[in-house]
Amino acid sequence: MTGGTFDKEYNFITGELYFNETHLKEMFVRGRCTLDISVTKLMMIDSLDITKEHRSLILNSCKEANEENIIITHGTDTMVETAKVLAEAKLKDKTIVLTGAMIPYAFGTSSDGFFNLGASLAYAKALDCGVYICMNGRYFEWDKVRKNRKTGFFENL
Amino acid sequence: MTGGTFDKEYNFITGELYFNETHLKEMFVRGRCTLDISVTKLMMIDSLDITKEHRSLILNSCKEANEENIIITHGTDTMVETAKVLAEAKLKDKTIVLTGAMIPYAFGTSSDGFFNLGASLAYAKALDCGVYICMNGRYFEWDKVRKNRKTGFFENL
Amino acid sequence: MTGGTFDKEYNFITGELYFNETHLKEMFVRGRCTLDISVTKLMMIDSLDITKEHRSLILNSCKEANEENIIITHGTDTMVETAKVLAEAKLKDKTIVLTGAMIPYAFGTSSDGFFNLGASLAYAKALDCGVYICMNGRYFEWDKVRKNRKTGFFENL
Amino acid sequence: MTGGTFDKEYNFITGELYFNETHLKEMFVRGRCTLDISVTKLMMIDSLDITKEHRSLILNSCKEANEENIIITHGTDTMVETAKVLAEAKLKDKTIVLTGAMIPYAFGTSSDGFFNLGASLAYAKALDCGVYICMNGRYFEWDKVRKNRKTGFFENL
Repeated sequence: MTGGTFDKEYNFITGELYFNETHLKEMFVRGRCTLDISVTKLMMIDSLDITKEHRSLILNSCKEANEENIIITHGTDTMVETAKVLAEAKLKDKTIVLTGAMIPYAFGTSSDGFFNLGASLAYAKALDCGVYICMNGRYFEWDKVRKNRKTGFFENL
Repeated sequence: MTGGTFDKEYNFITGELYFNETHLKEMFVRGRCTLDISVTKLMMIDSLDITKEHRSLILNSCKEANEENIIITHGTDTMVETAKVLAEAKLKDKTIVLTGAMIPYAFGTSSDGFFNLGASLAYAKALDCGVYICMNGRYFEWDKVRKNRKTGFFENL
Repeated sequence: MTGGTFDKEYNFITGELYFNETHLKEMFVRGRCTLDISVTKLMMIDSLDITKEHRSLILNSCKEANEENIIITHGTDTMVETAKVLAEAKLKDKTIVLTGAMIPYAFGTSSDGFFNLGASLAYAKALDCGVYICMNGRYFEWDKVRKNRKTGFFENL
Repeated sequence: MTGGTFDKEYNFITGELYFNETHLKEMFVRGRCTLDISVTKLMMIDSLDITKEHRSLILNSCKEANEENIIITHGTDTMVETAKVLAEAKLKDKTIVLTGAMIPYAFGTSSDGFFNLGASLAYAKALDCGVYICMNGRYFEWDKVRKNRKTGFFENL
């Protein structure tokens, strides 16, 4: 977990979005998920604020994880850049899926986050080793995808 | 689409659950899904009411579909029986995933349906040909799964 | 609080509606309500199961309450009968408003319950002493109202 | 209707809040409201952007309305200032209630807007002529209230 729109909430005093606690655990409960999952919070920030140092931390966490199947929740704006850093490290025996949301999970029945979480869990279980992005119900290989900033959809290069 | 709890709604006059329209299309929109999907309504019934004839109809629809990747929304009580009928027909080149929900999608932020739809789409794209059940974030091979009626969870045989 | 559709929940094992805990307290928090309110649970039952004895209990609770402004959450089917019992006791200095919901609060963004709670609180504060029913954004005097069982709306006699 | 947080939505491209269509009509439907209501859109803006001219427009609309019971949805930050302009015009035979929300209605089951709408409808029906603010389940006379900007609650002067 690194933050991103996925986990943002509305601050009713300032009228701005901010990070409070993650919603991941309640999402797994609501999804009645029985996979054996451990959740690690690396940071809770906007993906535009993710630096080279943050990406090193994400990479190290993936390296050191015992798990072979990893989901990274991440803001969509720089998700592809983080995927590149992870892919270039050529980790063996890991399937890493980055996912996020266009609308915060906390905004209820308009959010895509719960759908994306289900899809990314499944891709992380079923795809061969490698680094992928899961958005819009699809998976993309890390070097064949970009976010279209006008439409908000991810598309093949 | 065959019905099941997934698509049930609350009738505020009678206080009972019933089937109205499917929610699948709005779910794909909300999930911002850009996969090329065609939705077919075979029936809208409770899975306890699914007969041998209904299962033949489901099987024929799978056979005749041009698509290689198929999701069947289905009530959870007899999902495994329908999976068996489909698997025994030994369809080639098809990945078929049955999914459902324990709480209707129409019941808002308590439902597991949107998560299950995301996961089953991903498994249908990523798994080898065969017949699977997707519940609780997991996929199960059709002949190695049962619903535990006491807990409501699916588990390996 | 007496139960009714207002507080029903969905049992995902049996597929039936049942009573668990009330949602009233979380509703006051979500409504950011700063009125001084005390919540008392008298029963948690369907209004078709409310007997003469239950109505005596409700009446006694109103009599003994220190508060002048009282809301009773109640199933809609026999709400008018309970209102009659309360009105015939001719309690002095009490404004009593019965309210309920056509769709359970737990069913999320389709429920009318949160709106009805806001309206009944306001009527309980602002109306003269007496016994009223609050549904559909309106208040009705206890002896000039019935539930139309075909449409689910309350209407003037 | 003048806008305010009540009717804001989330723009998933820019990550900012904006105004699209009002949610008032769907809220009356969901509240199963059978009061005879006409909805007029005066503006759709943040209350910090409401000028003297906007307030004149709001006042004129109230003056010219045939209705005796009026709700004004309004941003909370300057709601009290607009109430003052309306009160000082000493309109006869009108009960005017200003209401708003701390969390947008579009943000689902966290919003206070639906509760506030129910309460303000009821106060507009039941209170004597005058100008009031309805927030937090309470009504306040226009000259005895302020918004506490630290807590987001309205309180008596």
